Amino acid sequence: MNGLPKSVEILISEFTKFPGIGKKTAQRLAFYILSSSKEEAVRFASSVVDVKTLVAACTVCGAISDEDLCEICKNNKRDDSIICVVERSEDISVLERTNSFVGMYHVLGGLLSPLDGVGPEKLNIQTLINRLKSGMEIILATSASLEGDATALYLQKLFEEKKIIVTRLARGLPVGGELEYTDEATLLRALEGRTSF
Amino acid sequence: MNGLPKSVEILISEFTKFPGIGKKTAQRLAFYILSSSKEEAVRFASSVVDVKTLVAACTVCGAISDEDLCEICKNNKRDDSIICVVERSEDISVLERTNSFVGMYHVLGGLLSPLDGVGPEKLNIQTLINRLKSGMEIILATSASLEGDATALYLQKLFEEKKIIVTRLARGLPVGGELEYTDEATLLRALEGRTSF
Repeated sequence: MNGLPKSVEILISEFTKFPGIGKKTAQRLAFYILSSSKEEAVRFASSVVDVKTLVAACTVCGAISDEDLCEICKNNKRDDSIICVVERSEDISVLERTNSFVGMYHVLGGLLSPLDGVGPEKLNIQTLINRLKSGMEIILATSASLEGDATALYLQKLFEEKKIIVTRLARGLPVGGELEYTDEATLLRALEGRTSF
Repeated sequence: MNGLPKSVEILISEFTKFPGIGKKTAQRLAFYILSSSKEEAVRFASSVVDVKTLVAACTVCGAISDEDLCEICKNNKRDDSIICVVERSEDISVLERTNSFVGMYHVLGGLLSPLDGVGPEKLNIQTLINRLKSGMEIILATSASLEGDATALYLQKLFEEKKIIVTRLARGLPVGGELEYTDEATLLRALEGRTSF
């Protein structure tokens, strides 16, 4: 027993479920909520529920969106002859921060991983195939991990017969590195130096 | 624009308000919520609101509690002839983790800080005076900071005339250190080696 009310204990244990949040950090976060006003806590709690209520997948690219079409698929200034294929929605905002890519995106929603039972049928591959047009370029921007490479290879083979250019990010990515944590400069070089698959 | 739905942007900015949470961590936490189930998100959000709704101050010691009396004040196995005075509720659970203190606590709710306009009238000092009984011991367990020392000195002067023993934590605490981040072993030594004020 450490003298904490049950509701505070529950909040701390909820916080420890988050990635990278240990017991001490969870306690700090919980006490921050205790020290903030009721309005602030309610606003925070609503924003948590809101993302789960309002956000769904874009019907075209599969990215998270609060409308049928995401901001990028809706934007007719973007180049729809080039699609950048990423694993997760969060990878899009990392790529967008390079301020150099004007094409579209497609979110696979995962990577091929036979050991975890993730086969091609569990990824948004059919919707990607539906978007293919002759002469377009597909950039395979999966992470430089085993699963990322395997997924890129699978897609490259799948698209071999079609009249499209398949490229992948240059080996500027550190091997084994996750896309989410790559700095903008490295990502920019990786985008510029993309190589033919 | 980084292609994120507005509700996700709002959640990320809510997370960056927390202490020690930067933009990247906030984004990870927000995406963790997006990837969790709606039930999990609602449970988390309710636990946030619950602490603000259910938790109030213990009417005796001022610690956070979900009842009129906190667990420690309710516990009649604890020694009520010794009161450990701390700045914040979270300091109690750090001291409780040493498993060596069986007395009661009193939460000041802050430290004297004339520059920030915090005078004695803003702290829970009157309620502490009401608890004093002849012959009891008061441990002044404020942080080893300027404000912590000033507050301890103020309380020591205030209690000089009364027939109580005033002690403070031994100088095992690193100077300038916050009580919340002190490891158990150091705190244990500080409790054992407390010196007469």
